[in-house]
Amino acid sequence: MKTLREEMPALKNKTYFNYGGQGPLPKLSLNAIQRSWLRIQELGPFTNDVWPYIAKEISSTRGILSDLCGVPSNRLALTENVTSGCVLPIWGLPISSGERILISDCEHPGVVAACKELARRKDLAIDFFSVQRIRYGLKEQEAKNEAIITSLEKGIKRKTRLVVLSHLLWNTGQVMPIPAVSKLLSNHPNKPFLLVDAAQSFGQLPVQEAASSSDIFAFTGHKWACGPEGLGGLAVSERIIEEANPTLIGWRSLKNEEIFNENLQDSFHLDSRRFEVATSCIPLLAGLRCSLELMEKEGSAKTRIKLIRKLSTQFWEKLQALEGVTPLLNGPPEAGLVSFVLDSNYSPKKVVKKLGEKNLWIRDLGMPSCLRACFHITTQEEEVIALIDALQNIIKGKS
Amino acid sequence: MKTLREEMPALKNKTYFNYGGQGPLPKLSLNAIQRSWLRIQELGPFTNDVWPYIAKEISSTRGILSDLCGVPSNRLALTENVTSGCVLPIWGLPISSGERILISDCEHPGVVAACKELARRKDLAIDFFSVQRIRYGLKEQEAKNEAIITSLEKGIKRKTRLVVLSHLLWNTGQVMPIPAVSKLLSNHPNKPFLLVDAAQSFGQLPVQEAASSSDIFAFTGHKWACGPEGLGGLAVSERIIEEANPTLIGWRSLKNEEIFNENLQDSFHLDSRRFEVATSCIPLLAGLRCSLELMEKEGSAKTRIKLIRKLSTQFWEKLQALEGVTPLLNGPPEAGLVSFVLDSNYSPKKVVKKLGEKNLWIRDLGMPSCLRACFHITTQEEEVIALIDALQNIIKGKS
Repeated sequence: MKTLREEMPALKNKTYFNYGGQGPLPKLSLNAIQRSWLRIQELGPFTNDVWPYIAKEISSTRGILSDLCGVPSNRLALTENVTSGCVLPIWGLPISSGERILISDCEHPGVVAACKELARRKDLAIDFFSVQRIRYGLKEQEAKNEAIITSLEKGIKRKTRLVVLSHLLWNTGQVMPIPAVSKLLSNHPNKPFLLVDAAQSFGQLPVQEAASSSDIFAFTGHKWACGPEGLGGLAVSERIIEEANPTLIGWRSLKNEEIFNENLQDSFHLDSRRFEVATSCIPLLAGLRCSLELMEKEGSAKTRIKLIRKLSTQFWEKLQALEGVTPLLNGPPEAGLVSFVLDSNYSPKKVVKKLGEKNLWIRDLGMPSCLRACFHITTQEEEVIALIDALQNIIKGKS
Repeated sequence: MKTLREEMPALKNKTYFNYGGQGPLPKLSLNAIQRSWLRIQELGPFTNDVWPYIAKEISSTRGILSDLCGVPSNRLALTENVTSGCVLPIWGLPISSGERILISDCEHPGVVAACKELARRKDLAIDFFSVQRIRYGLKEQEAKNEAIITSLEKGIKRKTRLVVLSHLLWNTGQVMPIPAVSKLLSNHPNKPFLLVDAAQSFGQLPVQEAASSSDIFAFTGHKWACGPEGLGGLAVSERIIEEANPTLIGWRSLKNEEIFNENLQDSFHLDSRRFEVATSCIPLLAGLRCSLELMEKEGSAKTRIKLIRKLSTQFWEKLQALEGVTPLLNGPPEAGLVSFVLDSNYSPKKVVKKLGEKNLWIRDLGMPSCLRACFHITTQEEEVIALIDALQNIIKGKS
């Protein structure tokens, strides 16, 4: 049997560290997508014969994703990408003029811009709280969590109604204590909703605790889960289903897609499907399920994150030992993302380009300006060493 | 060389009349999708090497779709489905409390529900105008167009700010005179926006005139264009780009996805991309382009609609001659959709089921309650006859 790494055509011809941008798609997952397409053509595409197949594709995928999130499947919606999952539910939240949105300083600019536009239209105020400057290593998790809670407590106001925080920060690579944040918010008199961007955690860390304690927990299948691009998911709390209205409405949001319901509120599904929209690419579901199964075969989520940490820690330690490199974190990383700043004549963009010429792929980030390498269970130790060597050559001006 | 029909696995084992639900995907298009996926893995998935490939995939697809719509490519956005295309831009329209939305009585319940939710939140009123009861045949196009304009004139009010009308009605199969509607609206003092749902026309009719005279012209690639599910497009007017704000905001809506722009309005693309969201399935683009090319090889859009009309007219004429069937249209159809009511002991849903048992696939509709068969350039005359025979047997109680 092939290893997961051997199943990935993308890893055959390059040294790859951009799992946080997009994960490689296993050939078996691509085959599963292809087979699903052919099955839909054989049974349909639009016939009574194909509906049971499509219904089963959807329900089994929702089942697997909701299990991973630790929520019942009626609280799991399928989305096109993580941004849609973050942004769709916030437009229909019960939030009034004068209330406030509190956003961490490590959120993705897309989500921040959506919050700003929401604030502009509904006359809300936006506050930020800092998590970027908190940079403890794995062994100081407790101190890190305390510092985050303290920062949140400083930022939160009486009128805060929505808090936005990633599960795993895309720049520093730190894990946020989502259950503790959720607990703090539940004791706040204005009962703020908690939106969690899980773009970097899903497929990398166990997410049950974070997902089941968030109001909106949005993720994508195409990064650490190594599924196809164009498919993600969204776990929502009971409160979101009861109190938030759908905004981007289509046939999938509706109980009956063929007949108008006079009462608008009665038109919508009474579960997470009210945040789904219309036709999407069904064959992708088989691809994501296949990738998740392949991942599971390599070990449980707990086993996998240990392996990931082993690799990222090796890299972080070697970085520490290099002159002219400053890792963003003060200790070994909690997960597979390691960001760092290089003393070099080259801009981060130029460093990415120079490494790319040697077929080593990392990315640069803008806020803070830095470089980021990601390590997954498919990473090999020789790759870690190759990256360190290449960085050393750049610093020494040999490359 | 194989004909388009021979390229479609879905047509090999069934008699198919649901092109208006979903078109069959040619095997060559599926191969193109597969190849694109492998190419992305070979070059990427997230590397400097893959960006030029992805940029070219996007720009060539936008180019083809914008040509088909007769608009410059900076007014063409890619979407996941037709509903997203219809609904996304309306949430950011400049429309004020007390203004009104005028909707035809043949619109899809998803779009209607979205308008109702928009109206509820922004304190707008909703009016309907009837086009469903206008049922002229192909030879009375002028009378039909006049009747539609008269109905619209009756429905429109001083405060109407948005008009919603399909290009090709999904139930009666009539073509709406979009350029004439657009002209009428441009003379209205409140300058209403025109939203056109082109789910049934794109890939079936030439759409340039309608698309370039609409404010929002939304379509999907997976129905009459026989592309993959999960990819559609949206042509918008200059006015929409200038006056409407994006709502479902993600990295694709932003000029710079890595850094916040302090000024929100400066953050968004100054073209149709402001209505795009985030990561979607790039390989689908190659599939849609392949289907559109295969279609073009069978003849120009004008040639193709003539062939489609020939087949739908044959069917309509045979229906006319049957006892116990009433076609919705009073004359031969303008396009490939033919709806009818059957005098039978069976409900429309039951008729669909009984035909399906014979491997003939049509669909039932709810408003008005009827049956609908679609004819495309891949339909064969023997299939038309087989459907008529099967309907006759149902009416006679032989089936």
